Amino acid sequence: MISLHDPARRGFASDNYSGIHPEILEALAAANGGHQVSYGDDVYTERLQEVFRGHFGEQAQAYPVFNGTGANVISLQAVTRSWQAVVCAETAHINTDEGGAPEKVAGLKLHAVPTPDGKLTPELIDRQAWGIQDEHRAQPAVVSITQSTELGTVYTAEEIAAICAHAHDLGLLVHVDGSRLANAAAALDLPLRAFTTDAGVDLLSYGGTKNGLMLGEAVVVLNPEIGAPIKHLRKSAMQLASKMRFVSAQLIALLEGDLWLRNARHANAMAQKLYEAVRDIPGVTVTQVPRVNAVFAIIPPDVADRVRKRFRFYTWDPHTGEVRWMCAFDTTEADVQAFAAVLAEELRAP
Amino acid sequence: MISLHDPARRGFASDNYSGIHPEILEALAAANGGHQVSYGDDVYTERLQEVFRGHFGEQAQAYPVFNGTGANVISLQAVTRSWQAVVCAETAHINTDEGGAPEKVAGLKLHAVPTPDGKLTPELIDRQAWGIQDEHRAQPAVVSITQSTELGTVYTAEEIAAICAHAHDLGLLVHVDGSRLANAAAALDLPLRAFTTDAGVDLLSYGGTKNGLMLGEAVVVLNPEIGAPIKHLRKSAMQLASKMRFVSAQLIALLEGDLWLRNARHANAMAQKLYEAVRDIPGVTVTQVPRVNAVFAIIPPDVADRVRKRFRFYTWDPHTGEVRWMCAFDTTEADVQAFAAVLAEELRAP
Amino acid sequence: MISLHDPARRGFASDNYSGIHPEILEALAAANGGHQVSYGDDVYTERLQEVFRGHFGEQAQAYPVFNGTGANVISLQAVTRSWQAVVCAETAHINTDEGGAPEKVAGLKLHAVPTPDGKLTPELIDRQAWGIQDEHRAQPAVVSITQSTELGTVYTAEEIAAICAHAHDLGLLVHVDGSRLANAAAALDLPLRAFTTDAGVDLLSYGGTKNGLMLGEAVVVLNPEIGAPIKHLRKSAMQLASKMRFVSAQLIALLEGDLWLRNARHANAMAQKLYEAVRDIPGVTVTQVPRVNAVFAIIPPDVADRVRKRFRFYTWDPHTGEVRWMCAFDTTEADVQAFAAVLAEELRAP
Amino acid sequence: MISLHDPARRGFASDNYSGIHPEILEALAAANGGHQVSYGDDVYTERLQEVFRGHFGEQAQAYPVFNGTGANVISLQAVTRSWQAVVCAETAHINTDEGGAPEKVAGLKLHAVPTPDGKLTPELIDRQAWGIQDEHRAQPAVVSITQSTELGTVYTAEEIAAICAHAHDLGLLVHVDGSRLANAAAALDLPLRAFTTDAGVDLLSYGGTKNGLMLGEAVVVLNPEIGAPIKHLRKSAMQLASKMRFVSAQLIALLEGDLWLRNARHANAMAQKLYEAVRDIPGVTVTQVPRVNAVFAIIPPDVADRVRKRFRFYTWDPHTGEVRWMCAFDTTEADVQAFAAVLAEELRAP
Repeated sequence: MISLHDPARRGFASDNYSGIHPEILEALAAANGGHQVSYGDDVYTERLQEVFRGHFGEQAQAYPVFNGTGANVISLQAVTRSWQAVVCAETAHINTDEGGAPEKVAGLKLHAVPTPDGKLTPELIDRQAWGIQDEHRAQPAVVSITQSTELGTVYTAEEIAAICAHAHDLGLLVHVDGSRLANAAAALDLPLRAFTTDAGVDLLSYGGTKNGLMLGEAVVVLNPEIGAPIKHLRKSAMQLASKMRFVSAQLIALLEGDLWLRNARHANAMAQKLYEAVRDIPGVTVTQVPRVNAVFAIIPPDVADRVRKRFRFYTWDPHTGEVRWMCAFDTTEADVQAFAAVLAEELRAP
Repeated sequence: MISLHDPARRGFASDNYSGIHPEILEALAAANGGHQVSYGDDVYTERLQEVFRGHFGEQAQAYPVFNGTGANVISLQAVTRSWQAVVCAETAHINTDEGGAPEKVAGLKLHAVPTPDGKLTPELIDRQAWGIQDEHRAQPAVVSITQSTELGTVYTAEEIAAICAHAHDLGLLVHVDGSRLANAAAALDLPLRAFTTDAGVDLLSYGGTKNGLMLGEAVVVLNPEIGAPIKHLRKSAMQLASKMRFVSAQLIALLEGDLWLRNARHANAMAQKLYEAVRDIPGVTVTQVPRVNAVFAIIPPDVADRVRKRFRFYTWDPHTGEVRWMCAFDTTEADVQAFAAVLAEELRAP
Repeated sequence: MISLHDPARRGFASDNYSGIHPEILEALAAANGGHQVSYGDDVYTERLQEVFRGHFGEQAQAYPVFNGTGANVISLQAVTRSWQAVVCAETAHINTDEGGAPEKVAGLKLHAVPTPDGKLTPELIDRQAWGIQDEHRAQPAVVSITQSTELGTVYTAEEIAAICAHAHDLGLLVHVDGSRLANAAAALDLPLRAFTTDAGVDLLSYGGTKNGLMLGEAVVVLNPEIGAPIKHLRKSAMQLASKMRFVSAQLIALLEGDLWLRNARHANAMAQKLYEAVRDIPGVTVTQVPRVNAVFAIIPPDVADRVRKRFRFYTWDPHTGEVRWMCAFDTTEADVQAFAAVLAEELRAP
Repeated sequence: MISLHDPARRGFASDNYSGIHPEILEALAAANGGHQVSYGDDVYTERLQEVFRGHFGEQAQAYPVFNGTGANVISLQAVTRSWQAVVCAETAHINTDEGGAPEKVAGLKLHAVPTPDGKLTPELIDRQAWGIQDEHRAQPAVVSITQSTELGTVYTAEEIAAICAHAHDLGLLVHVDGSRLANAAAALDLPLRAFTTDAGVDLLSYGGTKNGLMLGEAVVVLNPEIGAPIKHLRKSAMQLASKMRFVSAQLIALLEGDLWLRNARHANAMAQKLYEAVRDIPGVTVTQVPRVNAVFAIIPPDVADRVRKRFRFYTWDPHTGEVRWMCAFDTTEADVQAFAAVLAEELRAP
């Protein structure tokens, strides 16, 4: 089969517009050939356990799944009974971008809290973590936070530890949607476990797709009391890959060495470059200094539309004209400079 | 990353123990590089529509998904309302091997019918398609058949046409679980549309994984009145790939030329060879002549256990000692001969 | 408001065609007036606990609900996690007559077993209680039996004890659908606890509606490890009455004295009378001697239709012409004699 | 059975602390005796249709159910497909007080909007009614409003008409949670249809329990395109009463004459009296003039606790000390005066 697209074309729409990192593609080839037991009883999935234990500690168990929604819903369903609920930020991906999957697949009630920056705090959690034993209220059982958040902000390790301590005091567990956990680690310059396992997180969704995989995420269980249900839920939630070796092999290639960190650092660095390249262009108002791989800025809508003809990106808030420019593992400095030049040119246009 | 397994090792356990066909791996590489719109608005998914229309007719719409359970549940949920039900064979994969996903994800009631050979008939459908308008009975809305079946049997085009005519007369639609639709086409020596679109099938799950993909299936809608919900259900059922171009590219590589048919014919032919190689070995009772890529036979359990040390395979019925030997696109004649030799040797062993 | 119907008219269609026993109506009046805390924190619901403890032992906890489907689904959902399943007879009400509520409200997979007489046995349970730890199979977690059964048969205390012992050995709990538990107690001439608590049953649905209430059933938890979820599930499953005092007062009136037993004995005795009155009528083939309050018999369909003009009843099996005649707490001997006379007359008619 | 409680004791906690209106109890007796077809095919349920048509117009169809949560969830499920969602006020009973039943029973995603007074407007609806055709967002399909609202406010007929016009323009239907619809009619001094059928409402939950029934609500379908699913959903959602005649007879007694209006007017008038009796007591801040049967006021928490020893009521907002005093059909002027006297006394206490 020949290529149908122009592989030189890149934009700033989303890190999931990117393709497969070459080392990941090599891993797929290396895992190919011969027969391996399906549904996860293969040598790659076995090795993957070691890799995750290296990052998250000896008690970590990893369950590869297809996508982030799957990882989130399985995680949350594993730690709730059918009358229970999830406390999350109003901007959480599970609340706004998963087509209602938490409600529809798992019957989860989301108790969502407005936040200034996409981050929960013990005080914000308290706004929804009440009504214990009152059957008229779906019972809060787990707090779900996103690291890095949907708004490009990052929790410190101390902030996550405070959330975990508070949640555990209330009898709630803590889940992290780590669709961009690598970007957060790069921004914090900390090992993955420093702000997950060591902070008291109970389980998390580890994201590979946005960081260079073809596809692949994992439910990572850190609290050993939780593990049993995941195996069954992964199947009944339709997230069990038959040829799982190819999901596991990608995750090994990402996490065994430092590819996960190189990719995340690069994407973050490109966002920093982009920020520097555009912040002083007249007509651009950067709405916050980027912590990870996204730049949020306000530009005139007509300018946005003209720039989009060359580089795709999304409007984040149609009311304010705020847009989001996102960098990926394959964004180049040349992309950044070309984009900034087009933006400046269009802003100068009469 | 280096390979962790012996790529020369193969068995007869399942067609999903196999890896990725080399042409599929090339297609992944060809689709790589640059940016493509995520979630299916890419050139590969667009081209895929043409490919499916070529096989199933101008009205066909294809929605790539991750796995077979996902394809089945989305298909069935699209054609039922929340008080409705599915008529299927008791041996249907949706009834026995999907961890309850139809019930748990979609609230589907399965009205299952015992069958002699895994195949429904109009008469067998009538055993469950009753109680219309009676609210005490979950209302039958769709018949789901599997082609080729879980028991290795194959519906003729006429049999499927009769089922569709009968179901439509009753006001029910017809879904085909086509996890091994290619193997059925090869066995029938018919184009795919001859026993689907042309027989009156309303929608189907098209299986790629067992036929040489890394992973990838598609919901294929043939009845144009059904299409709208699939897009939304694919998301809320957690089967929407962000980098969909890589699922679509695999399906294109499989279906644009004749790879789908070559792989299926080869797997079927190997099963025939295997049948011929074992049927006359004393102690082997082949329970039916293979139509597709599986041989079912009865051998002594202790012999089965010893043979398994060299070639993996599953026991199908522990009560009778019936085992299933399944061939894949990568099964070789040498594998078949080696297996038959080991089997004969172990049966002769004291 | 004046009565719109003829209160003298009775039939043999179902015990839920009957009305409210006069003592129950008095109980409603006695519980009326003034204010009582809603949702179950009232003196009637408190007293009801004592009443149920008197029948089922000190550990019993009773949760009044609206109807039998509600009692069954809440019970089963309380003892299953979202990947688990229920073993039941194919003829179980939960499988055939609840509109798919177990699947639709609770995502329950029912592993149904054909039975000769509506009764499970340890051997029949084994036909579905397998595949433990295999995520492809919804995991059996509870056995549900009906006492007396949908076919009018009755488990002995020993049979239930054997089922419980076997289920518990397998790690499964046991639920009893006791929609007609009183009729079974009357038939067995045993206290309610003899074939429930003392036999090892974990929880049950206690039926009041068919035994003389306006409406009212209860989930009764016998295994103290189960209780907590019921309170929350009753609400989220939409079975929590705000003015619960009126459901509880009915159940008190039924169960505090011997009204439950009088009503059940009467209904059973009337079925016995009916059996005796019809068994020798030429053209009537009684298909089994009644144990509780139903007579099953085969008569010519045209005769059935003519008799129905005077007394309503249902066809049980349209293929054989088997009909079901059911007696209620208010069936009179005169009703039985009149019915038998009409039946005999219509059978004699040319 | 004798009464276990003091029928002279009343409070101001909730209108569902009250009992059964004497005319309703008479209706239960009138409907008793003899046999009636179960599950709604009885003469009372038939007559009830006429009664509802009289109030809501010739196209109205009424489906009696057990409780308000049941009526709401069935209504909303009937007008949504499995990928769709409901727009409602953040304070809506479906969002805050139903234990997650909409999510858990029906997989509904609630898109909730903060409001100043519990009332939606076209502008507030627009804050959630977006993302049409975007599969990442659960698709808004219906707007649900409460009349009168959970905050004691009332929509005018014009306001509801404007909501319906706007929703219909967007392709959404409109549901009214009418748990206290009678109180709203009394407050507006309008026939029920003036602000439902005539305003364009598609279906509603009609509340009887808080207005004097023992228990009983109804799903009332006004848009004739919707009706079919309700019958099936009522069963699968576990809201189908077997002896339905007794639910229907209560609703007939309520709605055939003017009992519904007398009860509602009385409860509203008592709230007005209560408002007048307490508004000038030093230390009482009435937070809004009552429109229906609730008074909201701020008093010191310790005073509230002391008053509660005599008259139960609930704290509405623990942060502000706001409490809710609710009147019922059986609240007397003496109750109001006694309450005001105790309140004044406790506020004067040192």
